[in-house]
Amino acid sequence: MNMRFLTRQTSKFRWIWLTIITCLLFSCALVFPDRAPKPPLQRNVILLIGDGYGFSHFEIARAVKQHVDNSTLAQINMMNQGNTGYISTPPENGLVPDSAAAGTALATGHKTENGVLSQSPDGTPYKTALEMAKARGMATGLVSTSYITDATPAAFSAHSPTRSAYANIAEQQLLITGVDVMMGGGREDFIPESESGSRRKDTRNLLTEAQAAGYTIVSTAAELARIDAAHAPRLLGLFAIHTMAFEIDRATTNEPSLALMTQKALDVLRLQPKGFFLMVEGARIDHAAHANDAAAVIRDVLAFDEAVRIVYQFAREHPETLLIVTADHETGGVALNYGATPDHLRLLMEQQRSVEAMMKEVGKPITAGALQSVVRRYTPFTLSDEEVEHVLAQQRPTPFLSNWASDLLAGVLSARYNVAWVSRSHTGEPLFAFGVGPGAEKLRGFHDNTYIGKIIASFLQEE
Amino acid sequence: MNMRFLTRQTSKFRWIWLTIITCLLFSCALVFPDRAPKPPLQRNVILLIGDGYGFSHFEIARAVKQHVDNSTLAQINMMNQGNTGYISTPPENGLVPDSAAAGTALATGHKTENGVLSQSPDGTPYKTALEMAKARGMATGLVSTSYITDATPAAFSAHSPTRSAYANIAEQQLLITGVDVMMGGGREDFIPESESGSRRKDTRNLLTEAQAAGYTIVSTAAELARIDAAHAPRLLGLFAIHTMAFEIDRATTNEPSLALMTQKALDVLRLQPKGFFLMVEGARIDHAAHANDAAAVIRDVLAFDEAVRIVYQFAREHPETLLIVTADHETGGVALNYGATPDHLRLLMEQQRSVEAMMKEVGKPITAGALQSVVRRYTPFTLSDEEVEHVLAQQRPTPFLSNWASDLLAGVLSARYNVAWVSRSHTGEPLFAFGVGPGAEKLRGFHDNTYIGKIIASFLQEE
Repeated sequence: MNMRFLTRQTSKFRWIWLTIITCLLFSCALVFPDRAPKPPLQRNVILLIGDGYGFSHFEIARAVKQHVDNSTLAQINMMNQGNTGYISTPPENGLVPDSAAAGTALATGHKTENGVLSQSPDGTPYKTALEMAKARGMATGLVSTSYITDATPAAFSAHSPTRSAYANIAEQQLLITGVDVMMGGGREDFIPESESGSRRKDTRNLLTEAQAAGYTIVSTAAELARIDAAHAPRLLGLFAIHTMAFEIDRATTNEPSLALMTQKALDVLRLQPKGFFLMVEGARIDHAAHANDAAAVIRDVLAFDEAVRIVYQFAREHPETLLIVTADHETGGVALNYGATPDHLRLLMEQQRSVEAMMKEVGKPITAGALQSVVRRYTPFTLSDEEVEHVLAQQRPTPFLSNWASDLLAGVLSARYNVAWVSRSHTGEPLFAFGVGPGAEKLRGFHDNTYIGKIIASFLQEE
Repeated sequence: MNMRFLTRQTSKFRWIWLTIITCLLFSCALVFPDRAPKPPLQRNVILLIGDGYGFSHFEIARAVKQHVDNSTLAQINMMNQGNTGYISTPPENGLVPDSAAAGTALATGHKTENGVLSQSPDGTPYKTALEMAKARGMATGLVSTSYITDATPAAFSAHSPTRSAYANIAEQQLLITGVDVMMGGGREDFIPESESGSRRKDTRNLLTEAQAAGYTIVSTAAELARIDAAHAPRLLGLFAIHTMAFEIDRATTNEPSLALMTQKALDVLRLQPKGFFLMVEGARIDHAAHANDAAAVIRDVLAFDEAVRIVYQFAREHPETLLIVTADHETGGVALNYGATPDHLRLLMEQQRSVEAMMKEVGKPITAGALQSVVRRYTPFTLSDEEVEHVLAQQRPTPFLSNWASDLLAGVLSARYNVAWVSRSHTGEPLFAFGVGPGAEKLRGFHDNTYIGKIIASFLQEE
C-alpha cells in the first residue's frame, strides 16, 4: 500500500479524512462495546415459577388457546423473543424433586435434599437470590397462589431443615428476611392459635407485628385493587386461610387473580430506586395436577400465562430487567392421549368447577343422585351408569388416596377429555426455562436447575 | 474536532495513519461481515430424529450416563454449544401425531393427517427436503433402525395416502426418488413374494433392480464395516427382514449399530461435491416405549446418542453443515416416579434383553418356572410370587393388548425401576429441537414442528 499517497494532503482530500475518521469512530464503538458506559446500578430480577408445570400442561393450554380462544399464550411470544433452554431437576440423593429442593436450586444455585429449604442437608445455610437483592438495597417481593409459607416462596425467604416449619417460616419471611411485598394464601401461619383456622402453636399474631413493622395489610381482591402503590412500600396480602382457590373456582371467592397480585407487586416494587427482586409462583397448577383434575390445571396455567403477559410487558419496557420463566418439577405425568382432538379441549373448557369443589357440593355420604346432578351442573357430561358406579365404588379414605371418590371422578373426567396421568405425584421430566434481559442468553442449552440460581446470583452480584 | 490538525502531515505522523488505516480495515471487516465472500455452494443437512423420543426418555438416559457411566450425553454438549428450542407436534385435525404426519411436517414443512406421507389429505404432494437436496445435485441418505420403508424415512422419500403401502414406498425410494444411501431393516419390502418373509404381493425383486441401478448391497455389520466409501456412491444396507433389533438385543445378531450406519453414510455422502442431505432415525426408542420396556428404551436412546456424537463431530469440522436433532412425537408418557434414585438406574442397566426377547425365550404356554428362570438370567431380579401370578394371569391376546403377558412383565419391571407409563401409545408432549450450523439459530423459541421442515427448506433453497 502506498502510504505516501495516503498521507499526501490537499484540501480536496479533506472529505476523505472526515469520512475515514467518522467511520473509524463508529466502527470502534461497535467493535469495542465494552467501552460503552456501564448500565445504571438499578436492575430488576423477576422469576416466574409454575409449580408442577411441565411441557404437557403447557401444550394442553397452548392448544386450548389456539382452538377455543383463537389466540396465543403470552409465554410463546416471550419464548420466541427470548432465550429458550431446558433444565433437569434432580435433588441431592434422588432423581425427582419436591418443591423445597427444587425451590432451593432456583433460589440459591445449590442442590439439597427433598424437604429442605435453602440449606445443605447438614444445615449450612445457602444465601438466596432474594437475600442477595436485599443486600444490594433492592426491594423484594413474593407472590404465590399457595400459602405464602409454602416451599417455593419459602425457599427464597427462609432457611429450614424442614419445609413444614410454617410458623417459623412466616416469622423469618416477615421479621428476619423482611420481604417487602408478600401476597398469597396462608393467613393460618400468621394468626395466633386461638383464632379459627390457625396453624400456629403459640399466641403470636404476626399480622399485628407486621403492622408495627410498617406493612399495609390487605385480605380481599377489592382491597388490593384500591391500594395506592406509592403509600404501600411494604405490603402483606393474605387472601385465604390456607391455599388460595383454584382459578376455576375463584369467581366464588373474594380473592384476586395471580395477574392482579403480580401487577400490584410490580406497581409497588418499581418505585424503589435500586430496583427489585420479585418471585411469582403459579402454585395451584401443581395441586390440580396432584388431583389429576385436568380442567383445573389448565385454568391455572392460563392464569399463570396472564401473569407472564404482565411481567413480560414490564421487561420489554425496562431492559435492565432479567426475567426468567420456569417450573420446579412436573406433576402427574399428564399427557394428551393419541386420538385427542380439539373437541376434547372444548369439553374441558366447559368444566366450571374443580373436582374438589364439586365433591364438596356432592357432600357425604355420596349418593348417585347428588353426584349426577353436580356433574351435570358444572360439566358438559351426564355420567353413564358405569361411571357413577365407578365413583361410588369406594367412599372411604385409604392410606394412599385420602379422597378416593374425588380421585375416581377426576379419572372419569380426564378420560372424557382424552387426557391421561402417570401418577398423583411428581415426575423427573425436564422443564423449560426461558427468559429475556441481561444474562438470559445463558438459559440456552441444557442445564441443571441450580444453574438458574447461579444466573440470577451472578446478575445480582455484578458491580 | 480540529481537522487541520488531523490532516497536517509530517513524516513522524505516518505511524498514526498506518495504525488508523489498519484499524479501519480490521473494523470494517467486523462491521460489514456481509461483504465477506459467500460460503461455497456446498452445504450439508443432517437431521437426526428420535422416534417416540420425549424429554423423560432423554432424562433417564442423562441420569444413567451421570450415575452409571460417570459421563455425559453427546446431545448435552451439542445443546450447550448450539441452539435449543421446543416444538409442538399436532397433526391436521388432531392433537397427537403418528410418525407419518410428524415425519411429513419435518420433511416438508406441511401439516397432514395421521397416516399420510408427504401429501395433503386430498392428495397434493408436498416436496420433501430430500427431494429439494436432490434437485440441487446433492447426495442423499436415509438411515433407520426400523424397516427403511417405515413412516419416518418414507416421509422424506415417498408420497402416499397411506403409510402402509410399503412395497410401493420401497419402489419410490429406490427407483423414483433414487436415495443414494439407504440403511436399516425392511428387506421384506424389497424381495419377491416367493421369498421367505416377503411383504410384497408381486414377483419384483428390488434388490436385483437396485444392483442394476448401481447400488452396492450389504446385509451384515461385517460387510458394512468393509465397505470402501469411495467405491459405493450408492449403497443399500438391509440388515433385517423387518425392524432391526432393539439395541439391548443387538449383540445376538449380525446387525450394525446406528452409529456405524451413520458413520458409513457420512463416509459415502461427504465425498459428493455438492454436499448432502442425511436423515438418521433412532426408530426403536418408539417401539420399546410402545412396549413400555424401560431398559430397552434407554439402550436405544444411548445408541442414538452415539449417532449424535458422530454427526456433531462432523458438523464441528464442517461448519457449512446444518445439523438438527429432534423427535417426531413422545411415546408412552414415560416418567421417573417420585422416590426414584440412582440405584434404580443401576438396576435398569443390568437388564440384558428386551422384554420381547425374554418372552420369546420363555415360550408358550408360559410357565412360572420358565418365566422365573429367564427373568433371573437377564435381569437383577427374582420375581415375587405375586409378580409371577400377575404376569401369568392373562395369557391370551385381547383386542387391546396383543401380547398381554409381555405387557404385564414390562409393567412389573418398570415398577422395579420406579418408572411409570401413561399409555402404550403416543402423547402430545412438546419435544426438544436443537441444532448447529447455518440457520440453526431459528430453532430457538417455541414452534410448530412444520417450522423444522421450513428451516431446512429455506437452507436448501438459498442460492
